[in-house]
Amino acid sequence: MTQAANPTSSSELRDIVRDQLQLLLEQKNYEGAKMLLVPVPPVDIAEAIQGLSRPMQMLAFRLLSKSEAIAVYEYLDSDVQQSLLEEFRDQEAIDIVESMAPDDRANLFDEMPANLVRRVLAQLDPSERQATALLLGYKPDTAGRVMTPEFISVRADMTVSQAQERIRELARDKEVAYYVYVTDPVKRLLGTVSLRDLILASPDQRVEDVMERDVIFARADVDQEEVARLIQRYDLLALPIVDQEGILLGVVTVDDVIDILEEEATEDIYAIGGVRAEGESYFDSGFWSILKRRVPWLLVLVVTNIATVFIMSQYEEVLDSVVELAFFTPLLIDTGGNIGAQSSTVLIRGLSTDELRNKKPARVILRELFAGAALGIVLAVLVLGIAMVFVGKVEIGLTVGLSLIAIAALAATVGTLLPYLFHKMGFDPAFMASPFITTVADILGILIYLNIAKLLLNIG
Amino acid sequence: MTQAANPTSSSELRDIVRDQLQLLLEQKNYEGAKMLLVPVPPVDIAEAIQGLSRPMQMLAFRLLSKSEAIAVYEYLDSDVQQSLLEEFRDQEAIDIVESMAPDDRANLFDEMPANLVRRVLAQLDPSERQATALLLGYKPDTAGRVMTPEFISVRADMTVSQAQERIRELARDKEVAYYVYVTDPVKRLLGTVSLRDLILASPDQRVEDVMERDVIFARADVDQEEVARLIQRYDLLALPIVDQEGILLGVVTVDDVIDILEEEATEDIYAIGGVRAEGESYFDSGFWSILKRRVPWLLVLVVTNIATVFIMSQYEEVLDSVVELAFFTPLLIDTGGNIGAQSSTVLIRGLSTDELRNKKPARVILRELFAGAALGIVLAVLVLGIAMVFVGKVEIGLTVGLSLIAIAALAATVGTLLPYLFHKMGFDPAFMASPFITTVADILGILIYLNIAKLLLNIG
Repeated sequence: MTQAANPTSSSELRDIVRDQLQLLLEQKNYEGAKMLLVPVPPVDIAEAIQGLSRPMQMLAFRLLSKSEAIAVYEYLDSDVQQSLLEEFRDQEAIDIVESMAPDDRANLFDEMPANLVRRVLAQLDPSERQATALLLGYKPDTAGRVMTPEFISVRADMTVSQAQERIRELARDKEVAYYVYVTDPVKRLLGTVSLRDLILASPDQRVEDVMERDVIFARADVDQEEVARLIQRYDLLALPIVDQEGILLGVVTVDDVIDILEEEATEDIYAIGGVRAEGESYFDSGFWSILKRRVPWLLVLVVTNIATVFIMSQYEEVLDSVVELAFFTPLLIDTGGNIGAQSSTVLIRGLSTDELRNKKPARVILRELFAGAALGIVLAVLVLGIAMVFVGKVEIGLTVGLSLIAIAALAATVGTLLPYLFHKMGFDPAFMASPFITTVADILGILIYLNIAKLLLNIG
Repeated sequence: MTQAANPTSSSELRDIVRDQLQLLLEQKNYEGAKMLLVPVPPVDIAEAIQGLSRPMQMLAFRLLSKSEAIAVYEYLDSDVQQSLLEEFRDQEAIDIVESMAPDDRANLFDEMPANLVRRVLAQLDPSERQATALLLGYKPDTAGRVMTPEFISVRADMTVSQAQERIRELARDKEVAYYVYVTDPVKRLLGTVSLRDLILASPDQRVEDVMERDVIFARADVDQEEVARLIQRYDLLALPIVDQEGILLGVVTVDDVIDILEEEATEDIYAIGGVRAEGESYFDSGFWSILKRRVPWLLVLVVTNIATVFIMSQYEEVLDSVVELAFFTPLLIDTGGNIGAQSSTVLIRGLSTDELRNKKPARVILRELFAGAALGIVLAVLVLGIAMVFVGKVEIGLTVGLSLIAIAALAATVGTLLPYLFHKMGFDPAFMASPFITTVADILGILIYLNIAKLLLNIG
C-alpha cells in the first residue's frame, strides 16, 4: 500500500503532488514529473493538472502513458477537456474521445461547440458513434443520458460455465461488471445474475436457474433522480435501463448515483439560498455568471418587497404618532422570516428525500401552524420583556408580543403551504424556499403588526 | 420480472401494497396477506408495516418467513424495531438481533434503553457480541461505527483457485463480497482483489500476483464523511477500514455512503434553514421535539436582533423627523439579508463538497465583496425609482440607494467571512448560515442606513 492511501493526510499529499508537479515542469524535469505521477490515482492527477496554467496542462498531459491519459481525461473538468481537445492532433483527439465511456463522452459533447462535436463524431468508430448518439438522443438529466451502454449480458439458456467464459472475454472492454444481465434472443431483459452468484453456482447449472427474476429497472426517459432513488432504496450497485419494449439499453451505476444525489442536494441548497444552480461550480464561474445567477431572485424579492414600502406608507399616521413602533419592525419581520424559513426548509428537503410520501399534507400544514404559534408564544414573552426595557410602554409591548404570535403562526403556515402548492402544481417546490417565504412573511407581518397597533393603541 | 419493478408506477404500487395489507389484516385474511407480500422487496414490506398501527405491525411481522423477517427488520425505523423487540419472546428477539448485520445492530443498540441493550447483548453468540462491541467502541459517525466487520479476506500466498474456493465457502454468510481483501498472517491489509479479477485470472496464479497493491483505505477513528468522500472520489464499491497497526477491521460499503452523504446534505440544509438536524426524521418526531429543534436558533436570533431595536431607539430623532425612512427598513434589511444568505449558502456548500479546497480564501472573499457591490448597484437603481414613486423626495431616494449598495457589499462579505472563520477555527461553518448572517447583516444595515440618512438629510 502506498502512503498516499492514508486518508487523514491524503488531501495534503494531493497538494504536495500538485505543487511538485508545477515545480518539476518549470524546471523542465519531465522524467521527474513522470515518476512523480506513476503511483497517483487518475482522479488526483486530473486535479493536479487542473491546478496548472493552460500551456502547462498540455505539457503535463503529454507525460502520461496512453492508457493513463484516457483515465485522467475523464476526470478533467469539461472546460479543460475542451481546451486540451482543441490542441490535440486529430488522430490523438479521436483516440482519446473514442476510449472514453459513452456517458462521459456524451457529457463532454454537451458542452462542446456544435461544429467540433460534428467533426469528432464523424471520425469516431461506427459502434462508438452509435453508442454516443443513443445517449445524446435522450434529454439531459434522464436515465438514458446517464446510463452507460457498456454492460455484460448473457442468454438465459447458457450454462454457468459458458456464462463465465463469455464474461471473461467481455469484461476486459467493459466499464463495469457488477451484475451480469440475462436477456432473451431479442435482448429483452429477463433477469440478473451477480458475479458472486456465478462463482457460487456449480458450472453446469443453467443461467436461468440461478438468475434473479425480480429485477428493479427503469425506463430510459425517467428522470435521473428517480434512478438514484431506486438504487438508494434497494441498495443496488447498478440499475438496468430499458426502452418501452423492455429491451436492455444500458445501466446506471452506483458511482453516478452518488454524483446525481450530490448535484440534487446542491440544487436544493442553492435554491434555499436564492442562487441558481445550473452549470459549472459557483466558484469556478466568472464574475458575470455569478451576477446572472444571483440577480434574478434578488429582483423578484425586491419587487415583491415594494409591498412593504407601500403598506408602511399607507400607515404613515400610525408610525408618525408612535414612532417607537418602527424600532420593532426589523425584529418582528426577521423572526417571522426565520420561522417561515425553518418550515419551508424542512418541507422542501422532505419532498426531495421522499420522506413526505406517506404524510397527509393537511396534517403536516396544521402541525406547522401549531408549532409556529407555540414558537411565537415562547418568543413573545422574551420580546415583551425587551419592549418594556426599551420603550417602557405596556401597550407597545403587548402590540409587539401579540403580533409576534400571529406572525409566527402565519409564517410557519405559509412556509409549508407554498412549497406544497408548488409541488402539487408540478413545479419545483424549491422556488418557494426561504428567500421568497421570508418576503411573503414580511409583507403579511407588517400588515398584522400595524393593524394590531392601530387597534391596541387607538390610532386613527 | 414483476410489475412492481416498473419505476414510474412502483411508488403507486407501494401504496397499493400498504392499503391492501391493512385491509387483509382487518379482514383477518392472513393467508391473503402472506401471498400479497411474497414478491415484494423487504424495504417495501418494511414501509408497508410502518404504515400500520402498532398491534397490526406485530401481526404483519409474524406473517413473514424467518429469513424474510430478518431482512425486513433491518429496514424498519428504530422506534418500530424497538417496539417489536419488546414484544418478541426472548428467543425470537435473540434470533432476529443475532442475524442483523453488526453495523445495523449497533445502530439499533444506540437508540435502545441501556438495560435492554445489556440483556440482549448478554444473550448473543460470543462472535456476534464481539463484532457488535467492536463497533460500539467507536464514536458515532466514525468509520469504525459504520463499517461492517463481515468481509472476505484471503492470504497473499494462496492461488487464485484456492481463493475462489475460500470465497465460495465464506460468501454465503457475509453481507457483502464486492472486493476480496488480501492480508498477511497477522491480518495486516496488503491489497485487494476484485471478484472480477479473480474470474479473469488463470486458476494457478498467486493472489499476490493479481492483487492491487495501491489500496485506498481509512482508519477506524476517521469521520464517516471522510470515508464517504473517499469512496465518492475514487468510485469505490467498498473501503477497507484498519486500525493504527494497519490490521483490517471491516469495510464501509457504497450503499452506506449514499445514506451518509444524504444525511450530511440534510444537516447542511437544516442548518441553512435554522433547524437542528440530529436524530430521527423531522416529520416523524413529536411536537415537543420539533419545538426543541427550532427554539435554540430562534432565541439566538431574537436576542441578537435586540441590537436592531436598540440602534433604532438611539436614532429616534432621525426617524421622528423623517418618518418615511421607516418605510424602507424592511426592504433594505431583507435585501441585505438575501445577499448575505446567497453568499453564505454557496460558501457552506462549497466547504462541504470540498470544492473550495484549492481556492484562496482572500480571493473568494474579495470576489464576493465585489459581487455584492455590483448586485447592490443594480438593485439600488430599482429602489431609487421605488423611493421616488412612494415618497417623491430625491434625498430619501439617494439615502436608500446608497445604503443599499453599502449594505449589499457588506452582507456579501460577512456572509463569506463568517463561515470561513468558523471553518478555520474548527467549528461547523453551517452555524454561520443564512439565519445568523441575515441578522448580522440587518444590524449593520440599519446602522449604515440611519447614518447615511443623518448625513444626507442633515438631521441632528
